[in-house]
Amino acid sequence: MEFIVNHDVFAKAVYEVSRMVPTKSHHAALSGIMIKAEAEGLEIIGCNSELMVKKKIPIQEGNSSVLQVLRNGKSVLFSKYVSEVVKKLPEDIHFTLKDNHSITIQSGEVIFNMNAYEEIEFPQFEASDSNFSIKMNGKSLLEMFVQTAFAAAKTNSRPVLSGVLMELNESVLTVGATNSNRLAVRKMPFDKVGQRSAIIPVSAVNEFIKLMGTDSEDVLIHFSDRQIVFQNQYISLTTRLIEGKYPEIRGLIPSGAIMEITMDRERLRQGVDRAAVLANESKNHTISLSVKEGSLLKITSHSNEIGKIEESQQILSHKGEIGISVSVDSQYLSDALKAIKEDHVMISFGGVMKPILIRPTDTENQMHIISPVRVK
Amino acid sequence: MEFIVNHDVFAKAVYEVSRMVPTKSHHAALSGIMIKAEAEGLEIIGCNSELMVKKKIPIQEGNSSVLQVLRNGKSVLFSKYVSEVVKKLPEDIHFTLKDNHSITIQSGEVIFNMNAYEEIEFPQFEASDSNFSIKMNGKSLLEMFVQTAFAAAKTNSRPVLSGVLMELNESVLTVGATNSNRLAVRKMPFDKVGQRSAIIPVSAVNEFIKLMGTDSEDVLIHFSDRQIVFQNQYISLTTRLIEGKYPEIRGLIPSGAIMEITMDRERLRQGVDRAAVLANESKNHTISLSVKEGSLLKITSHSNEIGKIEESQQILSHKGEIGISVSVDSQYLSDALKAIKEDHVMISFGGVMKPILIRPTDTENQMHIISPVRVK
Repeated sequence: MEFIVNHDVFAKAVYEVSRMVPTKSHHAALSGIMIKAEAEGLEIIGCNSELMVKKKIPIQEGNSSVLQVLRNGKSVLFSKYVSEVVKKLPEDIHFTLKDNHSITIQSGEVIFNMNAYEEIEFPQFEASDSNFSIKMNGKSLLEMFVQTAFAAAKTNSRPVLSGVLMELNESVLTVGATNSNRLAVRKMPFDKVGQRSAIIPVSAVNEFIKLMGTDSEDVLIHFSDRQIVFQNQYISLTTRLIEGKYPEIRGLIPSGAIMEITMDRERLRQGVDRAAVLANESKNHTISLSVKEGSLLKITSHSNEIGKIEESQQILSHKGEIGISVSVDSQYLSDALKAIKEDHVMISFGGVMKPILIRPTDTENQMHIISPVRVK
Repeated sequence: MEFIVNHDVFAKAVYEVSRMVPTKSHHAALSGIMIKAEAEGLEIIGCNSELMVKKKIPIQEGNSSVLQVLRNGKSVLFSKYVSEVVKKLPEDIHFTLKDNHSITIQSGEVIFNMNAYEEIEFPQFEASDSNFSIKMNGKSLLEMFVQTAFAAAKTNSRPVLSGVLMELNESVLTVGATNSNRLAVRKMPFDKVGQRSAIIPVSAVNEFIKLMGTDSEDVLIHFSDRQIVFQNQYISLTTRLIEGKYPEIRGLIPSGAIMEITMDRERLRQGVDRAAVLANESKNHTISLSVKEGSLLKITSHSNEIGKIEESQQILSHKGEIGISVSVDSQYLSDALKAIKEDHVMISFGGVMKPILIRPTDTENQMHIISPVRVK
């Protein structure tokens, strides 16, 4: 194998593929990335136990030549070192596989000789037959993930909850995540009719957010029984799915509000963040939201040792009863208010010990549900 | 005590004073800051076991009124919470000490009631009689500290080496730091004749760098036997000194180079950083510098497991012998090359197992000395 490649293009590709490869592993090749050179371009592949990223570097990008393949071949290299050295190289990179055990990377006056691994040890995912594919705008999918993934469980006590549900049901695409104390849901009307769902590990969703969300290209999504593949022109991300049954989202959405109020989202978020300073002293980051007479929302938190923060914010409009007080986790409320981009939010109260629901005032396509904290 | 203060000015002052106050302490008041309100302004004071920061907020800054003191007094508050809440407040702050045990901070619709500590417990430093003071430009002192403090010892095995030496000897001011394997020295001609030295804890030097270096105001430095005070118009920083005898700096500077070479500083720094990727695998981050025939400097590092990086850089000029090879800690060399701002550096070699000396080509007021690493 031998090729000459543009420094910036190669460094970016190696970085993107290496990022989630484990740097320490009991089996050396698990810390490797594979580089393949073929007439049509390079392919760089990295894996961990859950996901695989493949990046292609074409011969040309736009009108400029970025790659010249002199000899086809492939090699597995220690990802950490190839990534760290390559990003520091001064100019175009001349890459040569000398025999199966070592490569040379030359850039200007710099020569990096590196040991290579046996290719056979590289733990590539097997391709699985996909029997269902959809196509959608990459930025829309990114937004759906960003607005929900944070709500997935951080612990593994119920494996399905450490995943993000992606479900196509008739002509609605739903993405949702819950840790059983909060739930975030995004829906989108979809032009393809079908019935399919997948529980995607939250780490893979976060990798998607970093890798594929920045360009507005379409993303192809291939569902199969145990994997899902996200793919655009130059990158593909394959992830194993979490097996099991995800809780029925419809069943988690409270019905029958006794009061609804509309608030300025950013102002409320700032108020919640202020109250959170004391709330973080308590186990559940408890703050209390109280409505009295329907015109002011009072946000309160207190700590016996430190003191009490209290502020009142104007309610923009309200419906239903005029008095209620609910205690919630300030971090959950803050996350929900950050996920929403719209200026105004509606908060629905179902009762003192019932979950609250937060959504933009002008759409039901996004919902955040937070269970109350029991205050002693 | 009662005052109304501009939000940004108060938040910045509280942040600067709180930063080095310990957040957890067996004695609650040690995590506190003291706020004093007097006719001429506010004074905010924070301490840890080594240093004390005092910040003044005047009634006016330039032409704008920033403070209105309604009632004099003082109070000790839990620094972490007052700092975190104050920075999140929306507008001017109305601060009231209600009795000796609680204060109220009001800003717009936000009311923060906070417990206060008994003032008597606050661990202020005692003022000590200074018998020697000098005045110098704040930015110059900052530069002297930035270019040397990194070389101080990170461990405490010899307490004096975890300090930075500041010495006025006749009409030269010297700042230096060493961990016994490397030394960084800055000198400056000084218009005051005198003989005085102090070993300043590196944590205090780093606090000075954060607090006082940004404005070009003059800094007054008051030496006393066990403390040193740095002071400008609004801030003072008092630090305990490290007791003991600092190594004689003159004795650490090698004499009698067998070869001197001149290099492009930034290019060399980049080369050292590249080689460091593999060097970091070895205990002493060993890289090797070799000169052959006086025209090229070869920078090499290697790891049996990973491979070898090698590059050659043009020597701009040389004096003395034409061949040598020395192994040094790449991190030390990189730090020295970052500390120097000039475009060209001179490296003096004393011999294979002798320290190397790096300095800007056009001044002897800055020197970095690095001991060689013994390679097995």
